Amino acid sequence: MTILVLNGVNLNMTGRREKDVYGTQTLRDINDRIEHYAEKLGITVKFFQNNLEGELCTAIQSAEGKYDGIILNAGAFTHYSYAIRDAIASVSVPVVEVHMSNVHAREEFRRNSVLTPVCRGEILGFGANSYILALESFLL
Amino acid sequence: MTILVLNGVNLNMTGRREKDVYGTQTLRDINDRIEHYAEKLGITVKFFQNNLEGELCTAIQSAEGKYDGIILNAGAFTHYSYAIRDAIASVSVPVVEVHMSNVHAREEFRRNSVLTPVCRGEILGFGANSYILALESFLL
Amino acid sequence: MTILVLNGVNLNMTGRREKDVYGTQTLRDINDRIEHYAEKLGITVKFFQNNLEGELCTAIQSAEGKYDGIILNAGAFTHYSYAIRDAIASVSVPVVEVHMSNVHAREEFRRNSVLTPVCRGEILGFGANSYILALESFLL
Amino acid sequence: MTILVLNGVNLNMTGRREKDVYGTQTLRDINDRIEHYAEKLGITVKFFQNNLEGELCTAIQSAEGKYDGIILNAGAFTHYSYAIRDAIASVSVPVVEVHMSNVHAREEFRRNSVLTPVCRGEILGFGANSYILALESFLL
Amino acid sequence: MTILVLNGVNLNMTGRREKDVYGTQTLRDINDRIEHYAEKLGITVKFFQNNLEGELCTAIQSAEGKYDGIILNAGAFTHYSYAIRDAIASVSVPVVEVHMSNVHAREEFRRNSVLTPVCRGEILGFGANSYILALESFLL
Amino acid sequence: MTILVLNGVNLNMTGRREKDVYGTQTLRDINDRIEHYAEKLGITVKFFQNNLEGELCTAIQSAEGKYDGIILNAGAFTHYSYAIRDAIASVSVPVVEVHMSNVHAREEFRRNSVLTPVCRGEILGFGANSYILALESFLL
Amino acid sequence: MTILVLNGVNLNMTGRREKDVYGTQTLRDINDRIEHYAEKLGITVKFFQNNLEGELCTAIQSAEGKYDGIILNAGAFTHYSYAIRDAIASVSVPVVEVHMSNVHAREEFRRNSVLTPVCRGEILGFGANSYILALESFLL
Amino acid sequence: MTILVLNGVNLNMTGRREKDVYGTQTLRDINDRIEHYAEKLGITVKFFQNNLEGELCTAIQSAEGKYDGIILNAGAFTHYSYAIRDAIASVSVPVVEVHMSNVHAREEFRRNSVLTPVCRGEILGFGANSYILALESFLL
Amino acid sequence: MTILVLNGVNLNMTGRREKDVYGTQTLRDINDRIEHYAEKLGITVKFFQNNLEGELCTAIQSAEGKYDGIILNAGAFTHYSYAIRDAIASVSVPVVEVHMSNVHAREEFRRNSVLTPVCRGEILGFGANSYILALESFLL
Amino acid sequence: MTILVLNGVNLNMTGRREKDVYGTQTLRDINDRIEHYAEKLGITVKFFQNNLEGELCTAIQSAEGKYDGIILNAGAFTHYSYAIRDAIASVSVPVVEVHMSNVHAREEFRRNSVLTPVCRGEILGFGANSYILALESFLL
Amino acid sequence: MTILVLNGVNLNMTGRREKDVYGTQTLRDINDRIEHYAEKLGITVKFFQNNLEGELCTAIQSAEGKYDGIILNAGAFTHYSYAIRDAIASVSVPVVEVHMSNVHAREEFRRNSVLTPVCRGEILGFGANSYILALESFLL
Amino acid sequence: MTILVLNGVNLNMTGRREKDVYGTQTLRDINDRIEHYAEKLGITVKFFQNNLEGELCTAIQSAEGKYDGIILNAGAFTHYSYAIRDAIASVSVPVVEVHMSNVHAREEFRRNSVLTPVCRGEILGFGANSYILALESFLL
Repeated sequence: MTILVLNGVNLNMTGRREKDVYGTQTLRDINDRIEHYAEKLGITVKFFQNNLEGELCTAIQSAEGKYDGIILNAGAFTHYSYAIRDAIASVSVPVVEVHMSNVHAREEFRRNSVLTPVCRGEILGFGANSYILALESFLL
Repeated sequence: MTILVLNGVNLNMTGRREKDVYGTQTLRDINDRIEHYAEKLGITVKFFQNNLEGELCTAIQSAEGKYDGIILNAGAFTHYSYAIRDAIASVSVPVVEVHMSNVHAREEFRRNSVLTPVCRGEILGFGANSYILALESFLL
Repeated sequence: MTILVLNGVNLNMTGRREKDVYGTQTLRDINDRIEHYAEKLGITVKFFQNNLEGELCTAIQSAEGKYDGIILNAGAFTHYSYAIRDAIASVSVPVVEVHMSNVHAREEFRRNSVLTPVCRGEILGFGANSYILALESFLL
Repeated sequence: MTILVLNGVNLNMTGRREKDVYGTQTLRDINDRIEHYAEKLGITVKFFQNNLEGELCTAIQSAEGKYDGIILNAGAFTHYSYAIRDAIASVSVPVVEVHMSNVHAREEFRRNSVLTPVCRGEILGFGANSYILALESFLL
Repeated sequence: MTILVLNGVNLNMTGRREKDVYGTQTLRDINDRIEHYAEKLGITVKFFQNNLEGELCTAIQSAEGKYDGIILNAGAFTHYSYAIRDAIASVSVPVVEVHMSNVHAREEFRRNSVLTPVCRGEILGFGANSYILALESFLL
Repeated sequence: MTILVLNGVNLNMTGRREKDVYGTQTLRDINDRIEHYAEKLGITVKFFQNNLEGELCTAIQSAEGKYDGIILNAGAFTHYSYAIRDAIASVSVPVVEVHMSNVHAREEFRRNSVLTPVCRGEILGFGANSYILALESFLL
Repeated sequence: MTILVLNGVNLNMTGRREKDVYGTQTLRDINDRIEHYAEKLGITVKFFQNNLEGELCTAIQSAEGKYDGIILNAGAFTHYSYAIRDAIASVSVPVVEVHMSNVHAREEFRRNSVLTPVCRGEILGFGANSYILALESFLL
Repeated sequence: MTILVLNGVNLNMTGRREKDVYGTQTLRDINDRIEHYAEKLGITVKFFQNNLEGELCTAIQSAEGKYDGIILNAGAFTHYSYAIRDAIASVSVPVVEVHMSNVHAREEFRRNSVLTPVCRGEILGFGANSYILALESFLL
Repeated sequence: MTILVLNGVNLNMTGRREKDVYGTQTLRDINDRIEHYAEKLGITVKFFQNNLEGELCTAIQSAEGKYDGIILNAGAFTHYSYAIRDAIASVSVPVVEVHMSNVHAREEFRRNSVLTPVCRGEILGFGANSYILALESFLL
Repeated sequence: MTILVLNGVNLNMTGRREKDVYGTQTLRDINDRIEHYAEKLGITVKFFQNNLEGELCTAIQSAEGKYDGIILNAGAFTHYSYAIRDAIASVSVPVVEVHMSNVHAREEFRRNSVLTPVCRGEILGFGANSYILALESFLL
Repeated sequence: MTILVLNGVNLNMTGRREKDVYGTQTLRDINDRIEHYAEKLGITVKFFQNNLEGELCTAIQSAEGKYDGIILNAGAFTHYSYAIRDAIASVSVPVVEVHMSNVHAREEFRRNSVLTPVCRGEILGFGANSYILALESFLL
Repeated sequence: MTILVLNGVNLNMTGRREKDVYGTQTLRDINDRIEHYAEKLGITVKFFQNNLEGELCTAIQSAEGKYDGIILNAGAFTHYSYAIRDAIASVSVPVVEVHMSNVHAREEFRRNSVLTPVCRGEILGFGANSYILALESFLL
C-alpha cells in the first residue's frame, strides 16, 4: 500500500509560525514521524508540499493508479479552492482530509471546507497525529 | 485508561435504518467490535446510548473523574444542541466527536456541528471505524 | 389497520391554553372524537403524548411493525427537532404531519418544519379535524 | 354545498409530465374521481383550470356568494403570486390549499408558499387524494 | 427540423426601447434575420411572442410533438417565473435559453434565472446573434 | 394633457374587500372622483384596470405617444413584476407609482417595490387621494 | 391650518451640493416657493432645519398641539434614525415623509426608510414639488 | 407569595465549571442564598433543576395555580427551545427570565433568546444576584 | 454611593406617548419614585435626560470619578449608537442597561441592543421598576 | 482571424473524469474537433490549458494584439477567481465564456460566475459544442 | 495649505480609555505632534473635535472654500452615519479617512465604514501616525 | 532598513489597463518613483511582482529575517486569498496593505479584504502615492 501525504500552502512553515496553534514540530519532523509510523504499518508513504493551488491539483490528478490513498491538508485552500475539489472528484483514489488544529474553534471562515463533500472522511484537531490517524484509516 | 463511548439519539437504530448510509451493522455489533479492538489496545470502554438530550448532558457531566475521554456521536443533536455543547464545556474530560457517515456530503443542515468548537477533535466518514480511530487518538 | 396518534410537547395543554388559537377542546376531548370517528372507519387508534423529544423518537422507532401509520403533531419540536426527523426516516411506517392551527399565519419561526421533508404528507389549519383528515388519508 | 376546484398553471399537464412525481392520472381523471366522490358526499363541484395568474384571481374574486369553498392548487404560482394571495384575502369564501406532491421534499424554492397565510388550511403529499381530503374538510 | 422561437414579455418593444442595451433592430427585423439564416440551414422556424406568462406556458406545453426544439427569451419572466420553469419541465422538447444582452453585466436581479436549471443550455450576450447561435446548436 | 390611470390586480375589488385597509369607496367611486377633480384641473383622464400582468405591460407599452403620464397602482404586482418594470423602462411616458394604504406599515413583503426605481416618483398612504396628488404632480 | 416643514441633516446644503441630483434651488428658494404656495391655499407654514438628530426629535415632540401636520424630509437620518421614528410615534400630529429625489433609484442603502411605517404617507421623486404635494395632502 | 426558581440544563454544574464565567458558588450555595433572601422578603421559594427540556415544560405547565411567579434560567435551552416558549405561553403565571452572565458579551449564538418575547421581563449579568433581583421584581 | 440615572432620546415624552406601552407616569413621576426609593437605600441619585446622542456620550464620559454607577435607558439609540457603546467602554464606571417595556416582544429592530455587550447587566420589562431593580443591583 | 481557446484547471482531465457529466471525449479529442471546424470557418485556433490560476491570467494578458478573441473555460476558477476577472478586464480582446455542462443544473456554488460580467457573452450546456458555438460567435 | 483635522465622538477620551488599543497619548498630545509635524511641512492645521454627529456635518459643510483638505477620524460614527457621508459628498474639499487602530482586526461591526466610498482615501492602523501620513498625502 | 514592495496579480498591467482607474504610469514607472523616494529616505527597496498566488506566499515566507517590512498590493487576491493571509500571519515582518484606487468606491466585492486583519495597517486611494505613504509609515 502506497499513500501520498499532500500538504498545501504555508504548511512548509509549520513549526516556524504560530507555535501556540501548531506546535514546534517542523513539517520535516512531522513527515519523519509519519514515515516511521508507516513503516511499522507496512505502508509506503510519499510526501509532497506545494504553495501553488494548481500544482496540488496536478498532484492529485497524477495520483490515479499510483497511490492507494491521499492524505490531504490543503491549508487555507481548504476554504475556497473549488479547483482542488474538482481535482479530488476527478480521480478514484480515496482522499482523507486532515487538519492539525481544531479549525472549528478558530476564525469563522475556517469552519467551512469546500473539500470535505468529495473526500472519504475528515480528521481534525489531533495535531500531527491527525496524519497518523488518517494513515490508520486506510488499514481498517 | 477508561473511555466512554456515548451515542445519541436514533443511534440505537443503526443497522436497522437507512442501510445505504449506515451499513448493516447494529449498534451492538459496532460496540462489540470497539470493545474487541479496545481490549487489544489495553483500553477499558463503557457504552451508553440515549435518545434524551438531557440524559446525554448528564452522562457527560458525570464523566468527570471517571473517564479519561469520551467518544461522542450525538446523532441529530450535533446540529442544534447547545445544551450538549455546554455540558462538554463544563467538564475537563476530552471529547472526540465522531460521525459514521460523511455528514458534509449529505443534507445542508448536517454540515453544521455546534459541538465541534468545544471538542478536542473530530473524525468523520469512516463508518464504524470512526469510533476505532477515535479510540486510537487517545493513545497517540 | 392500526394507527398511532402521536402528540408532542405542550399538546397536553390543548384546550387549557391560548383558546383563541386552539379552541376549548382538551386533548382528551379530541382523542375521544378521533377514536369515535376511527371506529366508524374500522381503524384502531392508539394515543401517546409526551413532552420529551427523545421519548417521541423512541415511540416512532417502536412503531415499526406495530402500526400501519403515524399521525404526528410534534408541537414546537416541529421547528427544530432533527432528532425526530431522523427517527421518522429510520422507520418504514408512513407518517402524516398535522397541525391544528394554520402555522403559516402565526409567528415567522412557525413557518419552518424540519419534519415535513421526511413525512408522507401534511395537513394543517383544520383544528381537531386535522387529525380526522389524516385518519381518512390512510384509507384513500 | 358547492365547491370550486381551482387548478393553476401547468396542472393541465398532470399525468402527461413528470409521472414519477405526479403519477399517470390526467387532470380529467382526477376531476372525474373528485366529482364521483363529491356526489357521494352530496357536494356539487365545479372545476376551473387556467394558466393565467390573473384569470385565477378573477375566478377567486367571482367565487364570492357563488361557492361555499375553494380547493386551490395554484401550481408554481404558489411560490410567488402575491396577486393570488390578495385575491384570496379579498373574498370571504374559505380556501383550502392543496398540493399533490410533498413540496417540502423537492427543490428548496417549493418550500415557500405565499398563499398559505391567507388560506384556511393546507393539505399536501397525498397525490390526487389531497383534493379528496380537502373536500372532506368542508364537511367536518 | 422545426424550431419554435419564443419571445416573452416586452420583447415586442425591442428596437424601440433602451437602444443602448438592445440596439435598433425591431423584433420583426430580428425574426426576419433568423428566418433567413434558418432557411440556409434547412430549418423551419415559427415565431411566437406574448406578454402573458400563462400564454408562454401554454405555448411551451403545446410544443410537444410539434417542434424539435424551442429557443426561449422569456424577458423579465426569466427571473421569477417558476410557472414557465414547470412548463419547460413538463415537455420533452429541448429548450435553449437566450438573452440578447449580457444580463450578468446589468442589475443584480438579472443575474438569477429560474429557468436555466431545466433548459438544455444557455446563450447570452451576442445581441440578435444569440438566437442564431441557438439555432446552430440544434444542428451540432 | 391626457393621463392614464392604470390599476392592477385585485383593485377592481376595492371597496368590497378589506374595508379597514381600503375604505368603502369602490374603484368606480374613486375613478369618478378622480375624473371630477381632473376636469377642474383641465386634465383628461382615461382609466384601465386589469388582473393580467401582461395586459398591464401592453397598456404601458401602448401609452407611448398617446398619454402625457401614467398613474400606476399595480397592486400586488408591485412586489415582484419585473415584467411591468421593464415595460415602464421601455416607454418615455413618465409613470407615478401610487398606493392607497401605507404599504410600509403592513406585511414585510409589501415594503419592497420593484417598480419604484424606474418610476418618476411615488405617493403612498393617502387613500384615494394618492391618485389626486399624483394628478397634481403632473401640473407642478 | 398650520404646518411645520421640517428639514434634517445636510438639507441646508440643497442647491449647493450634488446639483445633478437636487437641482440648483437653495433651501431658501424652496421654502419661499412653499410659503407662496401655502399662502394661496390658506395654510400657515413654519420652517425648521437642523443637522442634529436630537434637535429634530425635540422639534417633532414640540409640534404637539401647535401644528396640524408636519412635512418631514429627514435627509440621511431617514435610513437609520429610530430616534426620529420614536419621536413621530410619540405625537398625534400627522407626519408626511418627503424626498426630493427618487431615493429608490439611487444607492441601495437609500431604499430603506425606518420612518415610513409611522408616517401617514410618503411622497418622493418630484424635486421641490414633493413638499408642495405634501402640503396639498393636508387639504384633501 | 410562592415563587418557583426553575433552572435548566447544566446549571447543576454551576460553581464546578467555567469558574471565570460563573464564579465558584454552586447551585446549592445560590439556592441557599436565594432562600435566605426570600425569607426576609416574606416569599416562599421552591427550587427545581432539570437537564431535560420536556421536564422543564412540564414544570412550567404544573405551575399554574400553584405559584405566583417563575424565575427561569433555562441555560442553553434559552437559545432554541420553542417547546419551553410554548409552555410559558400556555400558563398565566408570570415568568422572569434570568441569566447569571452577560450573555450578550459572549458567543454570538447566546445573543438570541427565543423565550424573552413571552416572558414578563429579563434580568442578566449580575451573577447569582440576577435571581435576587428577579425575586424583588415580584414585590415591586 | 452616587448613581447617575441617564435617559436618552424621547424618554422625556414618557407618560405622554404610547400609554399602552409605557403607562401614564411621566419621567418626572418616575424620577421622583426612584429618588424616594434611593433615599431609603441610602443612595444619592442624579438625573439627566437628553435627546442628543453626543450629549449622552459626554455625560457618560464625565461620569468617571464622579459616579459609582450609571443606570442607562438610551431609548432608540440602544439599537444603533456605537457612539454610546464606545463611551461606555471608555469609562470604568459600571453601566446597567434598562428598558421599561419588554423590547423583545415588540418590533424586530428593538431586539438588538448594541450597548449590552459593554454593560454590566441588563434589566427589562418591569416598567418604571426596571430602574428600581437596577438601583438595587448596585447594593447586592 | 486567430482565436485562443483557453482551458483552466482540471480540464486536462476531461474524458477521464466524471464521464456522466462530461462525456468520454478527451481534451485532445475536443481540441481536434474545434481545430477541424475552425479550419472550415477559416479561423486559426491556438490552445492553452493550465491548472495554475496565475498562468491563465498571464495568458489572457498576453493575448492583447495577438488574438482576435478568447474562448475561455476557466473550470472551477469560474466561481471565485477575481484575478482572472481582472485579467479579462485588462485587455481589449473579447472573451466568450463557455461551459460544457449546464452549470446551473448542478451544485449551488456552480451557479455563480465571477467572470461573466466582464465577458462579451456566455455559452453553456452544449458539451464540446459550446466551444464550437463560441467559435461561430466571432464570425456573426 | 490649510488642513482641518476633524475628530468625532469619544476621541476626546483618547489616551484615557482602552490604552491597550489606543496608547497613552491624549488627543492634545496627538494634536501637538501633528501641529509640530505640519509646521515642518509648511502646512497650517486647525483642530476640531465634537461628540455630536450633526456638528461634525456642519464642520464639514463649512470647510468649503476655507480648507484644502480634511483629515477625518469619525470614531464610532464611521460605521453608521450616512449623515456625515452626505456632508462629505456635499463639499468639494477632499477628505482623508483615518483610524488609529486596525479596525479590521477588532469587532465585526468595525469592519464597515459608510464613509470610505465618498472619501479620497483611507489610512488605518498606524496609531497617531495615521494622521501624519494623511497630512503627507496632501503634499504628494 | 530594507523594504520589500510586493505586487500581486495583474499589477504588471498597471498603466496599460483601465487607465481611468489606475492612471497611465506603468508598474516600472511607479517602482522607479518609489525607489527614488526611498533613496531620499535612506531606505533600500526590493521589488517583486507575480501573478501566482502561491509565489506571493513564498515571497512573504522568505521575507523573514531579510526585510524590515513588506508593502503589499495583492491585487484581486486581496478579496479571497486566505493563503496569503496565512503567509502574512506566519512571519513577524510587518506588512502594510496598499491599494492605488479607493476600492470602497468600486464594485461591492472589492470592499472586503481578507488580508487587513493580519496586516499592520492599510493605505488606499492615493494612486501610486499609496506606496510612498506606506514607505513613510516605516520611518514614523
